[in-house]
Amino acid sequence: MSAINLAEKLAQFEGYWQPRTVARHNGNDVMVVKAKGEFVWHRHEDTDDFFLVLKGRLRIDLRDRSVELGPGEMFIVPKGVEHRPVAEEETHLVIIEPSGTPNTGDAATAAPHREI
Amino acid sequence: MSAINLAEKLAQFEGYWQPRTVARHNGNDVMVVKAKGEFVWHRHEDTDDFFLVLKGRLRIDLRDRSVELGPGEMFIVPKGVEHRPVAEEETHLVIIEPSGTPNTGDAATAAPHREI
Repeated sequence: MSAINLAEKLAQFEGYWQPRTVARHNGNDVMVVKAKGEFVWHRHEDTDDFFLVLKGRLRIDLRDRSVELGPGEMFIVPKGVEHRPVAEEETHLVIIEPSGTPNTGDAATAAPHREI
Repeated sequence: MSAINLAEKLAQFEGYWQPRTVARHNGNDVMVVKAKGEFVWHRHEDTDDFFLVLKGRLRIDLRDRSVELGPGEMFIVPKGVEHRPVAEEETHLVIIEPSGTPNTGDAATAAPHREI
């Protein structure tokens, strides 16, 4: 139980699309993640997907359009909606998902929610 | 379904400790709030309390100690733990609570979760 500095957490690891859990809130993992390049198209049937940009820029492609996010901007992808996050430059995010949610929508290909 | 700019949302209203809901995530309200001065001591029996500082500084008094948060820092008050948020200067926060949670822990004295 102490303050969680998100930039300090992000400085402690390397690797893109490899989320690290920094806190838990009502059964959800609050995670930081570094993004660069294109992630896979995926959907989560059982959870909305929370994105908040801390640094850089994130484009979230949906099948009918895209949403562009800069620092201090957030977006919720509703459950069941197919999406692909894309970052042209290294981008730092907060994401929130129920503990154990596979980040690709598929446990077989997902990165684990490791703690930091 | 569009990008949510948190600073723009915060510029659209006045008043301290009056949260505004900017998005919903799995039955939770994602809210922005302006804080200044001392809030009341309270607890939430059924939910953890999520605080992320965007601007300014927040002190969260617990009965045995305090946690200090600056921009980019967050803290989760576990359910059932009594706490009092205090901001010496105007401070801007993201808070997340299940939709309908009274911000004082008591529906009779709580500010509503208004949308913006």
